[in-house]
Amino acid sequence: MSSPSLAVSRRNRRTPYTERIEALGVQGYSIVNHTLLPKAFGRTVEEEYWHLRSSVQLWDVSCQRQVEVRGPDAARLVQMMTPRDLGSAVVGRCFYAPLIDDTAGLINDPVILKRADDWYWLSIADSDVLLWTKGLALGLGIDVAVTEPDVSPLAVQGPRAEDLVAAVFGDAVRNLAYFQFDCFDFLDRQLVVARSGYSKQGGFEIYLDDSRLGTELWDTLWTAGQGLDVAPGCPNLIERIEGGLLSYGNEMTRNNNPLEINLDRFCTLDGRIDYIGRSALEKISRNGPTQRIRGLLFDGGPCPPCGSPWPVYASGNPVGYVTSAIWSPRLERNVALGMVQKSVWATGQSVIVHSDDGVERTGLIQVPPI
Amino acid sequence: MSSPSLAVSRRNRRTPYTERIEALGVQGYSIVNHTLLPKAFGRTVEEEYWHLRSSVQLWDVSCQRQVEVRGPDAARLVQMMTPRDLGSAVVGRCFYAPLIDDTAGLINDPVILKRADDWYWLSIADSDVLLWTKGLALGLGIDVAVTEPDVSPLAVQGPRAEDLVAAVFGDAVRNLAYFQFDCFDFLDRQLVVARSGYSKQGGFEIYLDDSRLGTELWDTLWTAGQGLDVAPGCPNLIERIEGGLLSYGNEMTRNNNPLEINLDRFCTLDGRIDYIGRSALEKISRNGPTQRIRGLLFDGGPCPPCGSPWPVYASGNPVGYVTSAIWSPRLERNVALGMVQKSVWATGQSVIVHSDDGVERTGLIQVPPI
Repeated sequence: MSSPSLAVSRRNRRTPYTERIEALGVQGYSIVNHTLLPKAFGRTVEEEYWHLRSSVQLWDVSCQRQVEVRGPDAARLVQMMTPRDLGSAVVGRCFYAPLIDDTAGLINDPVILKRADDWYWLSIADSDVLLWTKGLALGLGIDVAVTEPDVSPLAVQGPRAEDLVAAVFGDAVRNLAYFQFDCFDFLDRQLVVARSGYSKQGGFEIYLDDSRLGTELWDTLWTAGQGLDVAPGCPNLIERIEGGLLSYGNEMTRNNNPLEINLDRFCTLDGRIDYIGRSALEKISRNGPTQRIRGLLFDGGPCPPCGSPWPVYASGNPVGYVTSAIWSPRLERNVALGMVQKSVWATGQSVIVHSDDGVERTGLIQVPPI
Repeated sequence: MSSPSLAVSRRNRRTPYTERIEALGVQGYSIVNHTLLPKAFGRTVEEEYWHLRSSVQLWDVSCQRQVEVRGPDAARLVQMMTPRDLGSAVVGRCFYAPLIDDTAGLINDPVILKRADDWYWLSIADSDVLLWTKGLALGLGIDVAVTEPDVSPLAVQGPRAEDLVAAVFGDAVRNLAYFQFDCFDFLDRQLVVARSGYSKQGGFEIYLDDSRLGTELWDTLWTAGQGLDVAPGCPNLIERIEGGLLSYGNEMTRNNNPLEINLDRFCTLDGRIDYIGRSALEKISRNGPTQRIRGLLFDGGPCPPCGSPWPVYASGNPVGYVTSAIWSPRLERNVALGMVQKSVWATGQSVIVHSDDGVERTGLIQVPPI
């Protein structure tokens, strides 16, 4: 069966890079934050995986919209939204931070950029954090401006990313530490460039803040990458599962808390800061989570796409479900992430995965990375 | 060029009806509220248009998620969220209501079902109204429970919809007035059935509140419809444009206010109720909106899909943009909705539409329905 198509409408927003993406033969999209995320360029996911691990790719991740929180009380509001202690956060750094509601349910898991003491960008996964933030600010009477600025990240990922970004923005980018950012000249603008991105191969994200320059930014990087085997790409499912990178909506929903997705290190539980959901999270922590995200390796030949949770069994009993899965050409097994109960969450536990093609597949639990 | 495909992941949620939709050969989807909305079944949009106008279709509109607001202060919170006066709202009725923020920008345009004095469902378009509502309630300290219940609407639309729904739920459904709902037996449950839906052909929406019964509900309607020329379908772009039905994300975004989309009759501007955005909306009203949504008819042969706003000109000057457009086989012209400035918003005004295939098309403004 051929893949279902995606309907065209303004509601599924195009990006500053979509024209170039189309010219390069994009064949599929996902939708994130009401925005097109290119997903296929005529090569298989396996071919893109090997290329990502050896060269450099440009990813249109404009769908990582920014929620800008700015004003005298910005720091206070942002701290209320996450159990991660941002008290010692310095300007010029990125912070991966779970956002939770009053039940400790996950609202999103953005990367937070601290641009100034009174100025934050929340670079978000797929939920309308803007509405959550605006609702809170309005209800609490907090003095901040909450907006979605014209900012469209372009990711440069892969082992040759540093050479490519340095060719365009200068060798100073080489000095950026992981999750550090700074501003660099591009035409008449200063663009935020961070060492970050949704792969384990290393790379950068360029926060273009003027849509009119999208084609020019793309072309400049494309031209500079011609000697570096540059190609268009996108977050690679094989690579992200092997690397244990989580996806909001897949590995976590509002029904999960941050401990279940192994973000214990970002959960302040000693009472030194206050935040929404604190008492709920402390209560969960006292008993400990009953399930956690784990990696899985399983057999039975290449599995179909995972469009809904697949049941996982041990000794005939249900013990969890797979949230993302795909065949790994490197490991020659299927790799997956899934939510499993405490009884089986240790590395090496044997499980059976029921993929929705009706096949029962023998597997092993492994703490990511796989 | 073939249509781009949609990537499969749990994040794009399947519905209680997806298995049946797949068995019927669905070929395309859109994504609304992180949920699959079937969009094509192997017939052209034109063929589906003629069928919708003559027979009956089943639409999987589970993506119309419900935001449930329940508790002693539910009525107060819901009224704060909309300029529509709900003071005399009675139980058992549906209310189309713009939701706005503090700048009078549109957050969503749900149909609100008043289930009891302390129990509302907001049947939403494509934005996370749940997060907006939860943020407001939490910030304001309002005593309500805000949840997304397991409710998946199935629409039955077309001139033969009443016969089909009556065959399953009994002749009492024939007594429902437009935008009235009641509970009707299905197996061991009582399902909300409303006379409503996103077409001008008439019909019903069934609010299934137990996902496990999705296949059974679909099959029951399908079987009952065999003598009525039933077919799977979806909101039809030709029919909705001709009928002047608006789509959040297309005809309106957060950058628009309710007057611009002609919802003046739902905007309380005399101060008798209070709501978020009241002062901003009153200020806009004093000067009057400077642009409004209008219908357009234009020539030049069938236009391409409208994936981004198309500029509209009059006498060489930019006067607005098209938000949705398609060829109408009945009118043998392109029909569209668009946001146009006051200088041209009267019926009969001449404009030029620049569709993104490079064609300049002569057109006329018309107040919907077209």
